Amino acid sequence: MLYTATQSLCLCSNLNAAGYQLLILCKDGNGKGTPLQTESSTYTYLLADADTKEAVIIDPVLETIDRDLKFVSELGLKLTVAVNTHCHADHITSTGPMKKRVPGLKSAISKLSGASADIHLTEGDKIPFGRHCLIVRETPGHTDGCITLVTGDQTMAFTGDALLIRGCGRTDFQQGCAKRLYKSVHEKIFTLPDECLLYPAHDYLGRMASSVGEERKFNPRLTKTMEEFADIMNNLNLPNPKKMATAVPANLVCGLQD
Amino acid sequence: MLYTATQSLCLCSNLNAAGYQLLILCKDGNGKGTPLQTESSTYTYLLADADTKEAVIIDPVLETIDRDLKFVSELGLKLTVAVNTHCHADHITSTGPMKKRVPGLKSAISKLSGASADIHLTEGDKIPFGRHCLIVRETPGHTDGCITLVTGDQTMAFTGDALLIRGCGRTDFQQGCAKRLYKSVHEKIFTLPDECLLYPAHDYLGRMASSVGEERKFNPRLTKTMEEFADIMNNLNLPNPKKMATAVPANLVCGLQD
Repeated sequence: MLYTATQSLCLCSNLNAAGYQLLILCKDGNGKGTPLQTESSTYTYLLADADTKEAVIIDPVLETIDRDLKFVSELGLKLTVAVNTHCHADHITSTGPMKKRVPGLKSAISKLSGASADIHLTEGDKIPFGRHCLIVRETPGHTDGCITLVTGDQTMAFTGDALLIRGCGRTDFQQGCAKRLYKSVHEKIFTLPDECLLYPAHDYLGRMASSVGEERKFNPRLTKTMEEFADIMNNLNLPNPKKMATAVPANLVCGLQD
Repeated sequence: MLYTATQSLCLCSNLNAAGYQLLILCKDGNGKGTPLQTESSTYTYLLADADTKEAVIIDPVLETIDRDLKFVSELGLKLTVAVNTHCHADHITSTGPMKKRVPGLKSAISKLSGASADIHLTEGDKIPFGRHCLIVRETPGHTDGCITLVTGDQTMAFTGDALLIRGCGRTDFQQGCAKRLYKSVHEKIFTLPDECLLYPAHDYLGRMASSVGEERKFNPRLTKTMEEFADIMNNLNLPNPKKMATAVPANLVCGLQD
């Protein structure tokens, strides 16, 4: 059946008759001439229960807080949790400022991230919203504290920087470890159903989402052996993210600095 | 029910049990350091029948042809039609080059656009793909030849530059006419079901999609009277798109210039 009542609320909906009724995908804008001159190509996800209107926001970005809260307001959502998949190095989170503007909102991040938050998540923890929930899978390797958030029915997973579309997060700073990442992806993400849709924290080519089946088949790095993967990752020779020196300390305190 | 076989193919899926089984959304990348330094924030849509694999691409962009055809190839799709919602002024289409690389691919654009193509579309025309189709609604105002493509079950509409998320295309060049656009949106788009999801050709703030119900309620321009709308549109005082002088002549010939 169609959830027409839900669809009327959708920005980018991912409807299925089994579970989650509303998924809103937001990317931070890069448009010239807009106030959002961000460079991190971060995807922010807003998931809600269409009946109760309880909602969770994943990886919100400081520069897009007004856009995101406008959606929350217009769509009549009750935002209960703002969760980060890890302590980002390329942008500053909006969870702190968002808490100041949304009464009752709780911030969440993994315990292993070392960052402050109202909720410290570990393996198997659930973030409920209405009749739905996100379940935490610890997927370290890009950072120690990286988590993947899987919907209760395993139709969607928000992978942060652990697994990207046809790629993965780098492993050369912030406690990064290629072999650990390889193990995380293979044991915690590739074990999900092939049809589980994957929503990463970034994509630099404008791609929106993937699936476990696709990445198991087409990911150019993760289809290699662990040794080959480690060799690739240890020789990327990438420059550090421009905002790293400010973003990491800020994100350790929910984006709020005194 | 869930279309698990379909989902395993999805990049960004929009599944419903009534009709369209696969929707892939692609945005041209703006990422720093990528080969896709485009500035037009154009959304390209790839729709397919998950059973027959027949597919249609909407508003493909020259700079992202390799990315888009890689998806087509990896997902085993048979791309039959590449359609433009209008003769774009801000980027060059890839329909011409794509035809050279995809045997049997037909280009399509509205007859009123004045552009060359294999298929010239007018009101009510259907673009079939497998058991699905897109139906043409002429929505002039941004340009004379603007069309909105509506899925046969009216669950999705691809509005080009006629209606944007909380906005609309400008009406100050290329035969633009504010009152004509107002009439198009109100008569051809706002008459669709409230739950019909809207996918525009652009968004400069990183928003992905909207719905008829949302835009009828929240669009800051189109909720005004026609006179007020015309007054807003006639006083935007925007500069011309940077690439206009090259994009329009190129797009009149499918992006191919001798």
